[in-house]
Amino acid sequence: MADTERRAAGTPHVVIVGGGFAGLWATRALARDAVRITLVDRRNHHLFQPLLYQVATAGLSAPDIAAPLRHILRRQRNVEVMLAEVEAIHADRRELGLAGGRTLAYDVLLLASGSTHAYFGHEEWEQVAPGLKTLADALKIRQQVLLAFEKAEQAADPAERAAWLDFAVIGGGPTGVELAGTLAEIARHTLRDEFRHVDPSTARVRLIEAGPRVLASFPESLSIKARQQLERLGVDVVTGTPVSEINADGYRLGETFVRARTVLWAAGVAASPLGRLLQAPTDRAGRVQVAADLSVPGHPEILVAGDLASVQQPDGTPVPGIAPAAKQMGRHAARVIRARLRGQPAPAFRYRDFGNLATIGRMAAVVDLRALRLSGALAWWFWLIAHVFFLIGFRNRLSVLINWASSYWSYQRHARIILEQPGDEPVEIDPPASHDATPPARRGLPST
Amino acid sequence: MADTERRAAGTPHVVIVGGGFAGLWATRALARDAVRITLVDRRNHHLFQPLLYQVATAGLSAPDIAAPLRHILRRQRNVEVMLAEVEAIHADRRELGLAGGRTLAYDVLLLASGSTHAYFGHEEWEQVAPGLKTLADALKIRQQVLLAFEKAEQAADPAERAAWLDFAVIGGGPTGVELAGTLAEIARHTLRDEFRHVDPSTARVRLIEAGPRVLASFPESLSIKARQQLERLGVDVVTGTPVSEINADGYRLGETFVRARTVLWAAGVAASPLGRLLQAPTDRAGRVQVAADLSVPGHPEILVAGDLASVQQPDGTPVPGIAPAAKQMGRHAARVIRARLRGQPAPAFRYRDFGNLATIGRMAAVVDLRALRLSGALAWWFWLIAHVFFLIGFRNRLSVLINWASSYWSYQRHARIILEQPGDEPVEIDPPASHDATPPARRGLPST
Repeated sequence: MADTERRAAGTPHVVIVGGGFAGLWATRALARDAVRITLVDRRNHHLFQPLLYQVATAGLSAPDIAAPLRHILRRQRNVEVMLAEVEAIHADRRELGLAGGRTLAYDVLLLASGSTHAYFGHEEWEQVAPGLKTLADALKIRQQVLLAFEKAEQAADPAERAAWLDFAVIGGGPTGVELAGTLAEIARHTLRDEFRHVDPSTARVRLIEAGPRVLASFPESLSIKARQQLERLGVDVVTGTPVSEINADGYRLGETFVRARTVLWAAGVAASPLGRLLQAPTDRAGRVQVAADLSVPGHPEILVAGDLASVQQPDGTPVPGIAPAAKQMGRHAARVIRARLRGQPAPAFRYRDFGNLATIGRMAAVVDLRALRLSGALAWWFWLIAHVFFLIGFRNRLSVLINWASSYWSYQRHARIILEQPGDEPVEIDPPASHDATPPARRGLPST
Repeated sequence: MADTERRAAGTPHVVIVGGGFAGLWATRALARDAVRITLVDRRNHHLFQPLLYQVATAGLSAPDIAAPLRHILRRQRNVEVMLAEVEAIHADRRELGLAGGRTLAYDVLLLASGSTHAYFGHEEWEQVAPGLKTLADALKIRQQVLLAFEKAEQAADPAERAAWLDFAVIGGGPTGVELAGTLAEIARHTLRDEFRHVDPSTARVRLIEAGPRVLASFPESLSIKARQQLERLGVDVVTGTPVSEINADGYRLGETFVRARTVLWAAGVAASPLGRLLQAPTDRAGRVQVAADLSVPGHPEILVAGDLASVQQPDGTPVPGIAPAAKQMGRHAARVIRARLRGQPAPAFRYRDFGNLATIGRMAAVVDLRALRLSGALAWWFWLIAHVFFLIGFRNRLSVLINWASSYWSYQRHARIILEQPGDEPVEIDPPASHDATPPARRGLPST
């Protein structure tokens, strides 16, 4: 890459790492500026993360909620999209180290690499309790959930069968609530009549939250409504009790060990590891503590936006890690870059809070617009319209709407496809495995 | 599985292996019969194979062309769907051996496990030239094709860049023609404006057929039309020259070694290995030579249908390995099973030939209805309507139609998603690999 030439040529080179909401919105906001932008992402697509749980639960297919970054940006001539992984940040010489030994020099750097799931020191749980951040995660969870019912159908031992029909979602935030509500719908409605040896509607779907209530970022009245709606959908909601152990056989809740073959993790996020590479101060979750203009203290040429940034609002509360906040930060970072390049003072970021919404299941959601709180069917319609409206690209929106309308009327979920394992092997129903090395999607089932 | 009880109970147990066109149509045709059916498949879905190339070329998503077998058959109470792999056929004691050491007894067995790709003794080519038979194959090819353009964009060496922009499809049958036509469209239209260092429309898409003409199963006049249409789409068609070598660097065509990073295999099919397990006479492609009623000579209780069966028509030509023939055989097998169980003589199978059609690309296809031969736009519309009409399930049809309408107007292909590699690693741009062990999707690119 002829970066030295570029720098010499005088057009400032802006490198943006991450094509999520923050990075993509910053890139677009710089469309008319006299800069050269390189958008670096290790994936080729922008992901509409708020609907990722629908891919995990077989309601939508992966391409429904993802669009190639190159395609989104094809007409923006000052951008080059680069499929690469950042491995080092050399702030002293304004250079990124990429996987494969390549380097990429920048004049201005925007880090927007987002967040990943965190296991709070129990990293071994990742093998048995997958989290949901990427399309690959979603497809893995989809596979695991669909296989659990297949394995229950084939289990000869009643205790083993029950363990395959026991689903736990750990973490009562929006992702946990969405997953639990949808799993309950799959068990109670979607799979009706399809099995001959088990009744999927007898499956237990349990949502476990260590804190006192689900959806803790919402007002307490909406947490209560959310719990009621979850219970109506058939979810067993447990609050105030932490999970102290997870393995391939199940999980420990308080003192009791519960046999369950499917445990999903929605209990925590941590910032992308790129924050640590910066060697700037970070908060407990690994987010970079940025100045009011989103720049890294001591490095005005490095900005951080989105889930990777730790930003305080004037009232002392942190800006939440949600898509609207990431878009606002991305747009603001573009303004700061513009000001920097013109030698003007950079404005401070101010988060505009438009409210908070979470979906629970069929006709069940909560919406907190500060002045207005909704729950139930009305909140669900509000959530649906907002999410379809914000999906990138007209085609995806239409396809998602059709899939939803069809799912809604039929209770069906069209993406219930179990793919073969990599290497062209078929999905196997294995002999029982121990709980250490085997990934959960291939966990065991006794031969009958 | 309480198979001995079942057999004792008197309701005949029909085991059908394979949920493709033959197996599924046979299962459905037995819906009102007093039999217990177990449909065994190692995948959870029926696949609409005629549109698989659209998944490989990112036009459709996997769930668009697949539906869970359980769901299709949920209301047919005499069927149990079993996700399992058959490893042995013990015809003497009427029992199948399944993976994991389980067994499954039958009174009547229908084998309909289809076909797989064949490399004619060059099995090592499978690593570097993937074939297209399953959804996993299609997703692998999609990944490889999309990554090839990414790698070309990053290649520093012009020869290396050219090798990433060189695509070869080996085999001029319907699958090869579809793949080559669609790849040319992707290179020439879909990726327009998206890259900054390469021009995808300079990519070479070559279709190589060892025989004298493409679409050899069609009348010669339509082969000529097909070739003209391919060339108009930008495909370099080479006939009469076999490929004698394929490795990760390219392929040898006649005397010349051509550097190409993407070689796709559409040159041959062989019957599923289950045919060999039967120890009955097979033809060169491994298909079981069945009697006129589709039964295995010496085993009236074992029938074979679909691509696994080798059946002669009265004029001596073989019944072709296409979806309509598989459906007809499946329905016929159901009739034979019914006759057997009533002690009546079994009717002979007669193939009703409704014609032959192949698509080539945008507004390009050939249709041979014996009395009527079409090519070009009219043939394409005929093909489109026929295929959407035959897709299983209303929802899929509508979604496929919308995706196609949208692709048609925009030249876009909505499923251009590169997923991470298994194990949650991002897609890597690796250092160059030797041509033996590394799977093609991860083949190398020099660091720059």
